[in-house]
Amino acid sequence: MARTGRDVISFAGGIPAPGLYPVAVLEEIQAELFRTAGQELFLHSPVEGCYPLRESIVQLLRQRQIAAAAKDIVVLSGSQQGLDFAARIFIRPGDTVIVEEPTFFGAIQIFRSAGARVIGVPIDKDGMRTDVLEALLVRHKPKFIYTLPTFQNPSGISLSLQRRYELLDLAYQHQLPILEDDPYGELYYDTTPVPSLKALDRYGYVIYLSTFSKALFLGLRVGWVTAPPQVLAKFAHLKQMTDLHVNTPAQLLLDAFIRRGHYERHVARLRQEYAGRRNAMLKALDKYKVPGIGWNKPAGGYYIWCRLPDNIVRHKLVANAAKRGVVFLPGEAFYPDGTQGDTHIRLNYTFAEPEQIDNGIKYLLQAVKETTCANYEEECQHALKPLV
Amino acid sequence: MARTGRDVISFAGGIPAPGLYPVAVLEEIQAELFRTAGQELFLHSPVEGCYPLRESIVQLLRQRQIAAAAKDIVVLSGSQQGLDFAARIFIRPGDTVIVEEPTFFGAIQIFRSAGARVIGVPIDKDGMRTDVLEALLVRHKPKFIYTLPTFQNPSGISLSLQRRYELLDLAYQHQLPILEDDPYGELYYDTTPVPSLKALDRYGYVIYLSTFSKALFLGLRVGWVTAPPQVLAKFAHLKQMTDLHVNTPAQLLLDAFIRRGHYERHVARLRQEYAGRRNAMLKALDKYKVPGIGWNKPAGGYYIWCRLPDNIVRHKLVANAAKRGVVFLPGEAFYPDGTQGDTHIRLNYTFAEPEQIDNGIKYLLQAVKETTCANYEEECQHALKPLV
Repeated sequence: MARTGRDVISFAGGIPAPGLYPVAVLEEIQAELFRTAGQELFLHSPVEGCYPLRESIVQLLRQRQIAAAAKDIVVLSGSQQGLDFAARIFIRPGDTVIVEEPTFFGAIQIFRSAGARVIGVPIDKDGMRTDVLEALLVRHKPKFIYTLPTFQNPSGISLSLQRRYELLDLAYQHQLPILEDDPYGELYYDTTPVPSLKALDRYGYVIYLSTFSKALFLGLRVGWVTAPPQVLAKFAHLKQMTDLHVNTPAQLLLDAFIRRGHYERHVARLRQEYAGRRNAMLKALDKYKVPGIGWNKPAGGYYIWCRLPDNIVRHKLVANAAKRGVVFLPGEAFYPDGTQGDTHIRLNYTFAEPEQIDNGIKYLLQAVKETTCANYEEECQHALKPLV
Repeated sequence: MARTGRDVISFAGGIPAPGLYPVAVLEEIQAELFRTAGQELFLHSPVEGCYPLRESIVQLLRQRQIAAAAKDIVVLSGSQQGLDFAARIFIRPGDTVIVEEPTFFGAIQIFRSAGARVIGVPIDKDGMRTDVLEALLVRHKPKFIYTLPTFQNPSGISLSLQRRYELLDLAYQHQLPILEDDPYGELYYDTTPVPSLKALDRYGYVIYLSTFSKALFLGLRVGWVTAPPQVLAKFAHLKQMTDLHVNTPAQLLLDAFIRRGHYERHVARLRQEYAGRRNAMLKALDKYKVPGIGWNKPAGGYYIWCRLPDNIVRHKLVANAAKRGVVFLPGEAFYPDGTQGDTHIRLNYTFAEPEQIDNGIKYLLQAVKETTCANYEEECQHALKPLV
């Protein structure tokens, strides 16, 4: 069953399907920009981003029910830069920030690197448990709440409308900013998702980050932040200090792509394609399921969060699956304390080709079966003890 | 004499002449990359930068007498990101860093924002005064020495070979990293400049930053760092944390541009063009000179550092020159303590068209004349008193 690199079926990454990149349209637009913009393509641009692109982003936000003007937006080198800037703006060593548990590991790493204690709030099928959150706010006095409320990474779960209102009310009561990270909100496969926190925010407590990395591609490194003016000014100041502005040709290319309606058409196409891949993975999980395994049905985004059987020898699963040619991410990485999460794995369904998904899940679940212990208590328990 | 925005002659910026951007060649390469690389143009790329571009940078460094391999390079979002990362790696609040006086104001701002005390070492016609430096190292125990040794910003002055050896020896003795910023080194107009500190460094103390912003254009936001492995790993870690990697299409475009010999040809052309503009500015300064004014003849780079007459009403000069349609940067910005430097102004000669330079200097020196005080002691001294 050993496989070469070329054969690997990857459920590990968080990147869009390269086969779906709208390369032909981009080629056409790029050629035209050379003719019309010429040397302006390579000029420096404003710290906050090219004005036309910020106008185009305003249109995208309008479709997400977020009212903003071009002046309310700062273009960033991916939404990841927004996480780094938020950490630099709000966190001093020893401060606390609140995140969902599980959450995007990059955010944990960035906040911690700024000196923060990162405290997790458990999620259930309706997202972050606001009933648990309140006590944590009182006890830890955090600097902000970081959340991926829509098709969360890694769980695929969304915060319910009821909980969104509860979360906002808690933020208002405790006068706490909410850092809303929304890379996946447009990629819904069943019904339109509930409004973003930013759309529901009445008092300007939400700092909203989004990106072109999930609906288009990562390679351009373009994302953005919209926030109340006094906070946005701090993002712009950091942009000016750290790297001046985002690559000008990428901004002009994206602007033209959006302005001509290609972005909307492309996202509509992705919804259809990725819904198919999600369905293929759900079907394969059902077809090859083994005792003790469980999974959710995400309504959008990139990931299925898969529960492992209790009697699995967890530390061997990655290697056993890789031997069968399948890679995925173990759940531990997504927990701030690193000791939880080994009950789950994250499965990405956007990158693998639809015809690979059935086989990939088959091999993965064979590996799961191979890695479970019949006499778990006697034979395998020791393997779970921490090394130190 | 009032002028509209279109008429302004700018000696203020630090950007290359847009009319010289090699747009046609870039258009051709970009079209070819769409055909050959296709979707790979938009894929994410390694944190350290695309390997081919790092190889191409190795070739550029070889021409600068710097021996490095692709693995020794991390591609950054402009060399400014390198300044920010250096600050994050080396500076804790209260630490001291040493800079030239005057120096690039962006560096002062970045280091200070990381909590550093920024201490200046005066320069003379041979660059940073290493005789003054030694006492400062003993007294302040800085974390690093920041220097622009070649065609310095703002003065255009280069560190002599003798002083380069002295600076390196002091760094070795005090076990201090040197952060060498070299945006202008290739743009020499008379003779080949002396080797960079990095080229002379025997013990791996020099962290070398450079960029494509001055020889090509700012809009791509691509620079790089080369440093000893343990320091370079920290730059790569910060890159991964803050914004993952530099825009992929820009990296592939630059790589192809260099690999096909266009970069070398372009820089050769710039040397000729900018030498002409420098000469035009020197000639105009001589032609329109007023009593008390002085200037240096830079052997390369972007700037002439111009000394003002003693009896000038400094705070009025910017406005008086702007009325005549000329802008420039006052010297104060380039001094860490902000109270010096009002004796000088920085004049950029790369941006203005050659035919504008003569007029621009004429108007500027008219403004200087208009802003000087015949009875300086009596009439004008009060205007120089600080407001607080």
